[in-house]
Amino acid sequence: MKFGIFGSAQAKRGGPDTDSGAGFRDFVELNVEAEALGFVSSFLVEHHFTGFGQVSATLNLLTWVGARTTTLRLGTAVIVLPWHNPVLLAEQAATIDLLSDGRLDFGIGKGYRHNEFAGFCIPMEESDGRFEEALEVIVKAWTSDAPWSHRGKYWQFDNVVVEPPTAQKPHPPFWMGAGHPESIARVAERGHHLLLDQFAPIEQTGERIAIFKREVKARGRIFDPMTVAVTRSVHVVMTAAEKEKAVEVRMAARRRTERLAQRPDGQNKASIMSYAMTPEAAEESALYGTPDEIIAKIQTLERLGARYVLLNSAGGPETLRRFAREVMPVFAREPLLDTVG
Amino acid sequence: MKFGIFGSAQAKRGGPDTDSGAGFRDFVELNVEAEALGFVSSFLVEHHFTGFGQVSATLNLLTWVGARTTTLRLGTAVIVLPWHNPVLLAEQAATIDLLSDGRLDFGIGKGYRHNEFAGFCIPMEESDGRFEEALEVIVKAWTSDAPWSHRGKYWQFDNVVVEPPTAQKPHPPFWMGAGHPESIARVAERGHHLLLDQFAPIEQTGERIAIFKREVKARGRIFDPMTVAVTRSVHVVMTAAEKEKAVEVRMAARRRTERLAQRPDGQNKASIMSYAMTPEAAEESALYGTPDEIIAKIQTLERLGARYVLLNSAGGPETLRRFAREVMPVFAREPLLDTVG
Repeated sequence: MKFGIFGSAQAKRGGPDTDSGAGFRDFVELNVEAEALGFVSSFLVEHHFTGFGQVSATLNLLTWVGARTTTLRLGTAVIVLPWHNPVLLAEQAATIDLLSDGRLDFGIGKGYRHNEFAGFCIPMEESDGRFEEALEVIVKAWTSDAPWSHRGKYWQFDNVVVEPPTAQKPHPPFWMGAGHPESIARVAERGHHLLLDQFAPIEQTGERIAIFKREVKARGRIFDPMTVAVTRSVHVVMTAAEKEKAVEVRMAARRRTERLAQRPDGQNKASIMSYAMTPEAAEESALYGTPDEIIAKIQTLERLGARYVLLNSAGGPETLRRFAREVMPVFAREPLLDTVG
Repeated sequence: MKFGIFGSAQAKRGGPDTDSGAGFRDFVELNVEAEALGFVSSFLVEHHFTGFGQVSATLNLLTWVGARTTTLRLGTAVIVLPWHNPVLLAEQAATIDLLSDGRLDFGIGKGYRHNEFAGFCIPMEESDGRFEEALEVIVKAWTSDAPWSHRGKYWQFDNVVVEPPTAQKPHPPFWMGAGHPESIARVAERGHHLLLDQFAPIEQTGERIAIFKREVKARGRIFDPMTVAVTRSVHVVMTAAEKEKAVEVRMAARRRTERLAQRPDGQNKASIMSYAMTPEAAEESALYGTPDEIIAKIQTLERLGARYVLLNSAGGPETLRRFAREVMPVFAREPLLDTVG
């Protein structure tokens, strides 16, 4: 069982008394410490126009983290392709992959937040088309040593060779979030790795792993359990009152995201928008509790096929330290025989 | 007198035996050493589709350099605004400025190479319009705490607040290259800093400094000589034969750039394209020679008003080391009384 971290950092605008960089610097130090604690990766979000200082230039912050670390995999969760010129993005991602000696995990997505599409003045209906076209261009950019051209609906390039090359060959692994069975099948079909969200109940997460495994095998490929990363929120709390408070904070954050993501017509069909967020559900899908309670939940996830869990620490660095000290060692052994699916 | 460095790095595509990252890693180490040697800044190019591995994702490579250094100013020379989504670029630049605690020198340009416009399928005729619009958006993105919208010819944004904020207030300094007198006047009018190219003869460079100084003062502002950076190629060579060889290499590199930059109709009017590149001119505009010869040329530049010189080392790290040891100390004193212009 391997563990990584995922999340964001905050850089708040404000008056002359606000140190806007503190959140970014704390994030960098958290990553340096996470590597030392035994976490194998760090996945960083991309968001825009939230007004609460989320990370927008994901690859840039991740590049700084890369320069301060040596083994940590550098993940994006996820870069929203419809916002980006795919050639510039291919160059930026190749640059961090090259500088980090092949540590980039390139998580990509179509976007699901209404406020971001609105801000960029890109119709949400173009999301699929822009995603597919950008992905095609990026793969071509990374794998073509000879000049090529592209005449697409959204982008045109003429007679280009894109540099620098990536360190990983043929290119860094793509990771994609998916929840609906048909979306999971599509990730398998592409040969990408799968990111599972932090809100799905544990049982449903297990079903999704099984679907992905089946879909990969159905295409004649060997299933590598490290190609599925399950995201979970984690908080080491020792009392019922602490846990209740942590769940409340989780629900408030969730509501804030939903307000940004929802379309005016209420028709956002992304699977990540589909969960009832009752206190019970908010607690069930999170790893909130004593180290023993957290271990029990991860053992359930492991029985259901999970081998790679990405943690968002709602309890800050202290929770990651306790997790590394008291939870991680339990799973530092040969994985369970893989009998699922 | 202050000295910085400028240049590029190379990441060559190639077979399994090619270590594509070597050039980037060498560049990072060169910057770390340059800071230790007393250079105050590093300015990095942006180029695309050259086929010889120049730096494309400038801010990303510069971010890695930022994480490895502590005082070095991090400059771009220059980011070509017409290629970039101005909001994404504002986010990327703000991120490095924030992480580096305000060390970004944001050099911007309109682009002058035909092959890049052609590759991006952007008509070269749109260069001015795209530049002006992008610059307007970037300034708004960096300085607006309240939501704003933009309805331009090339870009639209609706009701956005761009994050993170920059560390430097109101924003990082803009630097612009210019050569024609009217272009220099326009840089002064914008309140930007001036980058002078490495090919102009020394006397002409002096004239340009004088024009800029006059134009700044004509607008009622105090002229700060550190707002003009003169770029020069440098190579410590001890014999006539070495110097001749260095000049030949310089001319070959210049011809390669001209081939990429020239338009099919031969009508590229950028001032950087205007120099006759005879061996004599190639030598006169470069700092090639013994330390004493180099000192003499820099003293001439200093008499003509230069206080800040950015060096591209054609002699690799060894030339920078000798420069720091044998040339820099001569200028480590109070500047000449500024009597020019």
